[in-house]
Amino acid sequence: MINRIGQYTIEFENQPEICGYASIVGKKESEGPIKEWFDKIVYDSHSGKDTWEQAESDLQKQALDMALGKAKIKSNDCNMVFSGDLLNQCISSGFGLRDFGIPFLGQYGACSTMAQSLIMASVMIESGAARYAGAMTSSHFCSAERQYRFPLEYGGQRTPTAQWTVTGSGSIILGEKSPNPDTRCKVIKRAVIGKITDLGVTDANNMGAAMAPAACETIKSFFLDTGASPDDYDAIFTGDLGAVGTKLLHELLEKENIDIRNKHKDCGLMIFDNKQQDTHAGGSGCGCSASVLCSYILKNMDSGNYNKILFIATGALMSPTSCQQGESIPSIAHLVEIEGI
Amino acid sequence: MINRIGQYTIEFENQPEICGYASIVGKKESEGPIKEWFDKIVYDSHSGKDTWEQAESDLQKQALDMALGKAKIKSNDCNMVFSGDLLNQCISSGFGLRDFGIPFLGQYGACSTMAQSLIMASVMIESGAARYAGAMTSSHFCSAERQYRFPLEYGGQRTPTAQWTVTGSGSIILGEKSPNPDTRCKVIKRAVIGKITDLGVTDANNMGAAMAPAACETIKSFFLDTGASPDDYDAIFTGDLGAVGTKLLHELLEKENIDIRNKHKDCGLMIFDNKQQDTHAGGSGCGCSASVLCSYILKNMDSGNYNKILFIATGALMSPTSCQQGESIPSIAHLVEIEGI
Repeated sequence: MINRIGQYTIEFENQPEICGYASIVGKKESEGPIKEWFDKIVYDSHSGKDTWEQAESDLQKQALDMALGKAKIKSNDCNMVFSGDLLNQCISSGFGLRDFGIPFLGQYGACSTMAQSLIMASVMIESGAARYAGAMTSSHFCSAERQYRFPLEYGGQRTPTAQWTVTGSGSIILGEKSPNPDTRCKVIKRAVIGKITDLGVTDANNMGAAMAPAACETIKSFFLDTGASPDDYDAIFTGDLGAVGTKLLHELLEKENIDIRNKHKDCGLMIFDNKQQDTHAGGSGCGCSASVLCSYILKNMDSGNYNKILFIATGALMSPTSCQQGESIPSIAHLVEIEGI
Repeated sequence: MINRIGQYTIEFENQPEICGYASIVGKKESEGPIKEWFDKIVYDSHSGKDTWEQAESDLQKQALDMALGKAKIKSNDCNMVFSGDLLNQCISSGFGLRDFGIPFLGQYGACSTMAQSLIMASVMIESGAARYAGAMTSSHFCSAERQYRFPLEYGGQRTPTAQWTVTGSGSIILGEKSPNPDTRCKVIKRAVIGKITDLGVTDANNMGAAMAPAACETIKSFFLDTGASPDDYDAIFTGDLGAVGTKLLHELLEKENIDIRNKHKDCGLMIFDNKQQDTHAGGSGCGCSASVLCSYILKNMDSGNYNKILFIATGALMSPTSCQQGESIPSIAHLVEIEGI
C-alpha cells in the first residue's frame, strides 16, 4: 500500500526495488566529466539508421534490452513499461518499444519524464498491478534541435543561457524484489508528484529559469510533508536546471529557509564540461537526468558511496507553437527518494 | 490491492468509484446523433481565445471544473490529475490544467488517452496514493488539422477513410468512495494495458485500419485472461475505429472466435452522422471517446440502461514526422471494465 504524508508526498510501504538499470549515450557525452560511468556509447549520431528520430528510438531499444538483461528477466516477465520523450507524439518511445510486446503507457513530462516514469512504475509494483515494470526515457541532440529550434545545417547561434540536449537514454526495471543478487538493494521510498508552476518566463532559450520555481515547489513540499532536511541525504540531484536554473533554485530555496547547496548536484552540470565542451548553461533533455541516474548515481549507490538520495527531474511543458503564440513556460518537477539498504 | 489475472488483465479489489464526470463539445458535435447527452456546448471554435490551441486548453479547464463540481470536491482535494492530448508536447493539457494547482502527470496515448488516464487514476486510488484523482483528455478539430494535416485555409480534400477530429473534452474524478450520493455508483473493476501493435499500415488517412489490430489484441487478451464473454456485457464501446476500423475489428475478432457485433458500438460512429455531417469514416481524436464516455455512456449507466460495459480506447502512436519518414503506424488499445452497482 501507499500512504499519503502531508499534502503532496506519497510513501511506498513495501519499497519497490531497482532490479536492473542501464544507460546509453552519444559521443559528446562520452567525452564529458562522467564518461566512465555509462554502459554503452554510440559514436554515430545516426546509430546506423536513416534518421535521427530512428536513432533516438534505437537508444531506448538498447537501453531497455540492457536493463532487462541486468535485471535477469525476459521481456515477457516485464508487465508494463512507462516511457516518454521530447519528440512530437513521443515517437522515440513508441517506435523504440514497439517490438518488445510489453504493455506500454506513454508518459509526457518533458525533461521530468524519468522521475515521472519511476513514480508510475513504483506505484504499479506497490499496488500489485505489476511484478516487474520498466521506467525510461530518451533524448537526442539532433532530433531535438531540428524539432524545437533550427535545422542543424542552419548553424544557429546559441544564447549563453541555452542548454545542450543530451543524446542518451536511461532505463530502470523495478520489481517487488530483485531476482538479481549481484547488486546492492536500492529501493524507492517516497515520492512527490509535482504541480504545474509558471512564474511567467517566456524565453525558450532559458529553460533553467523557467524550471527552477517548479523544482523549488516540489523540494519545499517534500521537506514540509516529511519533516526531513537536506542533511538527511548523501546527495540531492536535480535534472536539468543547468547553471542559470541552479543558481535560481538556490536563491528560491533560501527564501524558504532551505539550503541544499552542500548536497546539491545538477545532472545538467554533471554530464558536460560547459567550458571545454561549449555547452553553455549545461545539459538538458529527458535523456540527461535519465542517463546520469542510470550510471553515475545508481552505480555510486551500488558501491555504497551514496546511501540515501533525492532525485528531482524538472520539465518545461511548452512547445514551439505555444512559445510562438507568446505563452509563458509552465514547468513541473517530480521527486523520488531512493535508498540503498 | 490490485490482482493480476492471466497475462495482461489487472483487477481492482476495492473498485475505485466514479465520483463525477463531465463532457464539453463543439458546435458540430452538438448537431450529431448524441447531441442531447453533453453537459456543455462551445459554439465558437476559438472559445473566445486568440488561438485554437488556447481554445482546446480551455475545453480541458472547463471539463475539469465541471467534473470537480459534480463530484462535489474542491481542486485541493484532488490529489492528482492524468491528462494528455494530440498536440505536440501535450500543450492542451499542460496549459489547460496549469492554474488548478493539482499535481499533474502528463499522459501520451494518442486517442487511447481517456482509457489510459482512467487506468492510471484507478491504480492511484486503489493503491492509496490518491483519495481523489482526475482522468481526462481533449482534442480540437482545428488545432489537430493544422498540426497533423493541412492549414484549414488550404481546404484540403479528405479521403473516404479519413476520420474527423472531435472538438471536445471529457473529465472523470475517481475516488475510493463518492462523496456525492446523488448519482448511481459506478466502479472500475478490471483493466488491460495494451501492447504496441503494428501490422504495417502506412496510410495516415486510414487510422481505423491501423488501430483495429490493437483493439483486437486487447479485447482478445481480456476475454482469454478473465474467461468472460461479450454476452456478459450490456455494451462494448471502442473509440475510435470509425467505419473502416470497426469492420476490420469484427473480421479480426472473428478469426479468434469472438463475436462482439451485437454488443459493439464505436464512439467514432456514435458522435457524428457520417452522411449528413460529411465526416467520412467517423469521429476521432482523444476528445471523441472521452466526450462520449463522459456523456452518453456514463449517463446511461446512471439511469440503469447499462450495468456492465467495456470501454476500449485505441490510439495511433505516429507523428507527421514518422509518416514522412515512411514508417508504419504503431497502435495501442487500453481496456477498462466499468460496472454500475
